[in-house]
Amino acid sequence: MSKKPIFEKLALIGIGLIGSSISHVVRREGLVGSISVSSRSEKTLTRAKELGLGDEYAASAADAVKDADCVIHCAPVGAGAAIAEAIAPELKPGAIVTDVGSVKASVIAQMKPHMPKGVHFIAGHPVAGTEYSGPDAGFASLFENRWTILTPEDDVDRDALATLTKFWQACGANVETMDATHHDLVLAVTSHIPQLISYNIVDTAANLETVTQSEVMKYSAGGFRDFTRLAASDPTMWRDVCLHNKSAVLEILGRFSEDLTAMQRAIRWGDGDALFEIFTRTRHIRKDIIAVGQEIDAPNFGRDEPGE
Amino acid sequence: MSKKPIFEKLALIGIGLIGSSISHVVRREGLVGSISVSSRSEKTLTRAKELGLGDEYAASAADAVKDADCVIHCAPVGAGAAIAEAIAPELKPGAIVTDVGSVKASVIAQMKPHMPKGVHFIAGHPVAGTEYSGPDAGFASLFENRWTILTPEDDVDRDALATLTKFWQACGANVETMDATHHDLVLAVTSHIPQLISYNIVDTAANLETVTQSEVMKYSAGGFRDFTRLAASDPTMWRDVCLHNKSAVLEILGRFSEDLTAMQRAIRWGDGDALFEIFTRTRHIRKDIIAVGQEIDAPNFGRDEPGE
Repeated sequence: MSKKPIFEKLALIGIGLIGSSISHVVRREGLVGSISVSSRSEKTLTRAKELGLGDEYAASAADAVKDADCVIHCAPVGAGAAIAEAIAPELKPGAIVTDVGSVKASVIAQMKPHMPKGVHFIAGHPVAGTEYSGPDAGFASLFENRWTILTPEDDVDRDALATLTKFWQACGANVETMDATHHDLVLAVTSHIPQLISYNIVDTAANLETVTQSEVMKYSAGGFRDFTRLAASDPTMWRDVCLHNKSAVLEILGRFSEDLTAMQRAIRWGDGDALFEIFTRTRHIRKDIIAVGQEIDAPNFGRDEPGE
Repeated sequence: MSKKPIFEKLALIGIGLIGSSISHVVRREGLVGSISVSSRSEKTLTRAKELGLGDEYAASAADAVKDADCVIHCAPVGAGAAIAEAIAPELKPGAIVTDVGSVKASVIAQMKPHMPKGVHFIAGHPVAGTEYSGPDAGFASLFENRWTILTPEDDVDRDALATLTKFWQACGANVETMDATHHDLVLAVTSHIPQLISYNIVDTAANLETVTQSEVMKYSAGGFRDFTRLAASDPTMWRDVCLHNKSAVLEILGRFSEDLTAMQRAIRWGDGDALFEIFTRTRHIRKDIIAVGQEIDAPNFGRDEPGE
């Protein structure tokens, strides 16, 4: 490896989809000298070893962070306080501590109070993922062309922020900084509500007395199958997101329900013009998302490989 | 073309995604002697000519169906009555008249009363599509491995039903028969509600004062982008589906909202166990859909081409 690593030692606390993807990309790009991996789950840690995701492995987060220049909390967001408390006594002065959770205000509230003086805590969130989870799910290109949001506070160390920004950029991501509360509202819209809606519709379909499960599956290409992707995501991760981003999630869910009720009323009263207007104005948004490089334009996400 | 065509002459009334896909596949498989195409829209008909989707073209449906052995109504479901009335005097005795709409009871009610004696009307629905529409959107493999549902009534001519079944199978589809009312309920679940939910969430996201459109797009990989696919579908088609499958759509929408309210309450009261339980039981459904061949197992629908 010819270029100088950004961190001599990186500690990954939790080694699921995001943790293992970080391991793959930092190795490919030569971004760190060595990786220590910890997981609360013995099974996960054993699998991480088999996959060679780290250079050292530790059952406890406290052991994993010793001498680490950067520590990334990659466990579900609800674990933030316990991890912060456990690792605090072992953190190296000057180390950067960050995370990858989909909720930021709660993670800051959980972790920052435990951070020793001289340790730089900056919460972060790579907006990337798949419906798969666990140490086998990671791949090096996960962050490529996706956005990582950092939510530094006013007292942030500028050098530490620059280093962490450089790290994520080297992982392939675009980096944006944002206020934590605003992040939580934005992600409620672009991630948490879509996730909840998906879980909900899949659950509704699973609980009908009049339509069989076999029918739901056979005719899922009518649109339903799209929702099953998000609804296959890690339950622990998403439970924690809901519980730790309660107010933003409830606010956006309230909006969604209000709009849905209006749509329901338009259907009941046969107001075709109102429906046509909504269905028309939503159409361009996909084109815009494709234009900014966050989606592909192949029909059906390209999954059906259409062709003559 | 060595094998005998199933129909000497096929008439396609409407030449959007489904009509043009039928044209491509029947040509590839040699299923018909010739194709006549009609569209109410001059622009669409001109484009169909440019694409060579038919052998004859007619501005009126009545002209297109002359001498046709099979007539397929491929226009939005709301056009059924007008099309049936227009074509009735010109239909060839013994012809099969069918459709491809996502609602069946309404199409039968609109079309069947106009059918002359000796003409065989059998409503149908290929459960397949993409978010693209118009004569350019079609491709020959659209129906491959998907299901086509036929909803014959008790007085159906068995030979006509067998012929239409053979036709769809030759287009690559699996064929199932079902009661029209049951079809409409099943499709409300697997297609109409997913479609409405997608339109609704994209519209909710587009109308927030506190989150910019640029933010919605940049961070759409958090899940939102999945919904924009369905929300980019043809507005006319979907307006008609909502208006013509009102009772089933309202029933399933009611269920969905009820379940969503329960989920919202669990979030408000911090009931993590209830959330975890829902999020866990929805997980297996995707695996089952993959197992029955209606979805692929690549992460993110394969669109991000992950790989080391």
